[in-house]
Amino acid sequence: MSLLVTGTIGIDTVETPTGKAQRMLGGSCAYFAAAASFHTPVRVVAAVGGDWPAEHRTMLSRFRNVDLEGLEVRPGSKTFAWSGRYFDNMNERETLFTHLGVVEEKPPRIPSKYADSQYIFLANTHPAVQMELLNHLPKRKLAVADTMDLWINISRPELLQLLRQVDGVVLNYSEAEQLTGVRNAVTACRKILDMGPQFAVNKKGEHGAILVHRDGVATMPAYPAELHQVVDPTGAGDSFAGGMMGHLANAPRFDLQSLQTALAWGTVTASFTIESFGLDRLAQISRADIDARMKLFQAAARVG
Amino acid sequence: MSLLVTGTIGIDTVETPTGKAQRMLGGSCAYFAAAASFHTPVRVVAAVGGDWPAEHRTMLSRFRNVDLEGLEVRPGSKTFAWSGRYFDNMNERETLFTHLGVVEEKPPRIPSKYADSQYIFLANTHPAVQMELLNHLPKRKLAVADTMDLWINISRPELLQLLRQVDGVVLNYSEAEQLTGVRNAVTACRKILDMGPQFAVNKKGEHGAILVHRDGVATMPAYPAELHQVVDPTGAGDSFAGGMMGHLANAPRFDLQSLQTALAWGTVTASFTIESFGLDRLAQISRADIDARMKLFQAAARVG
Repeated sequence: MSLLVTGTIGIDTVETPTGKAQRMLGGSCAYFAAAASFHTPVRVVAAVGGDWPAEHRTMLSRFRNVDLEGLEVRPGSKTFAWSGRYFDNMNERETLFTHLGVVEEKPPRIPSKYADSQYIFLANTHPAVQMELLNHLPKRKLAVADTMDLWINISRPELLQLLRQVDGVVLNYSEAEQLTGVRNAVTACRKILDMGPQFAVNKKGEHGAILVHRDGVATMPAYPAELHQVVDPTGAGDSFAGGMMGHLANAPRFDLQSLQTALAWGTVTASFTIESFGLDRLAQISRADIDARMKLFQAAARVG
Repeated sequence: MSLLVTGTIGIDTVETPTGKAQRMLGGSCAYFAAAASFHTPVRVVAAVGGDWPAEHRTMLSRFRNVDLEGLEVRPGSKTFAWSGRYFDNMNERETLFTHLGVVEEKPPRIPSKYADSQYIFLANTHPAVQMELLNHLPKRKLAVADTMDLWINISRPELLQLLRQVDGVVLNYSEAEQLTGVRNAVTACRKILDMGPQFAVNKKGEHGAILVHRDGVATMPAYPAELHQVVDPTGAGDSFAGGMMGHLANAPRFDLQSLQTALAWGTVTASFTIESFGLDRLAQISRADIDARMKLFQAAARVG
């Protein structure tokens, strides 16, 4: 029941074909924690700088299941900041700038009261940092890591070492290809299983996700959003992981069936994230909204 | 129960990253008919030239539910021929040549014994030809058309006229965008419904399909094929349509639920087509193989 996430809390500036939002709360950790909090209590381990806006704390505090004791403020440092622009189809984006700030410093400290955490999500950061944090969580029952193209390129040995330590990995379609050299979502995930994990989730954005588990394969479409519902895709992948891990933290086991159900909760939770810039939409909804949309999703994605 | 398909019978030469097949049986009508024949009897209305290889007739005759009385051989004409090359990811291809041959001549004749056909699939050809054939089928209960970028570009008025006459339309993701100007699978299909049809199916290849029906939306992933199972994607879309229409020809109605089930049969049937060049794989299997894979697909695509 004790889900811990570590990753970035950022200041995001995002442009889409329909609008722009400046200096809003973002980062993998923020999206993950907000999304997971609809399913289970979440502990945040992250660092921000002295420039972290007070209203960002207010926003994050609106998610009552999010424990911020592990959020370290470093007065002399700068908060991680990112800016991106989406192209017309909302599926591709370019990064305008990334200011690493505190992310370049030593990793955040894990509060002693978090040492008993059993469910761990290592959001995207340097794999050596992910590994170090993991080593401070000896009670873990389920550890899942995200990663990105940068680390596959420049830190492959550390990433491969991390993959031997985690139970699962979550990554994008193109990252799975980059990591394995295989241009097929299922077979690429199978190759990742050979590297250590029990399961790999291939995230395909608007096209859904594919799960390869030691016991089988699952595939799931995205929630079929209308054009006007797609405001800002930023954080969809982290929200997906949050919904997924939030469900797993209450699951009796991590078999193929539990993971399939977890994918569905991830899909439905993320479908709200994209309906606004930042966390605005997630901050408006309740668990009942997620449950209602799950029913719609199950009906829309029925097979046979 | 009387499903009629009209479209091309072609001579295909296909290159993929793993192999090449020359002058094999292809064309929208061939793939559709072979796929549909596992679900219901199919009547073929198409024309070929005097150069049509005898072994192509032998191949098509292996599908016992395919009635070839409407296959017109024009001794002085050339059979439609197409050649394409797939890129590394098997999802994109380039056309190396297209020789229209008989497709440029007058449309094939519909045999009088086919005049009572109730289920009609107008595979991809000039929309004016599709319309003319449709006008000779007054007993139709369900008419569905495919189309392509070429006709959207050069024959939009005729295509829009056709859309007012058919019950459903099946097209690719990019074609739906091109037809409507909307970069969203669901909303693009909704715009197509405004043009006349009761439903539109947006085919996304390896990413599955989205159905928009007057009564709601459905979404379905593709069958999660492994790398070695993807030999040649040619004809997957036509096989999908064949499985779908083959199921609908036996369905008591064409509501959202029947169409969802039909999409699943289309998906599973097409998953065999891509396992070989041409119709080789479909010619090897039986309905029992399709039924067995449907069970696997339902398990893999279970939601929640």
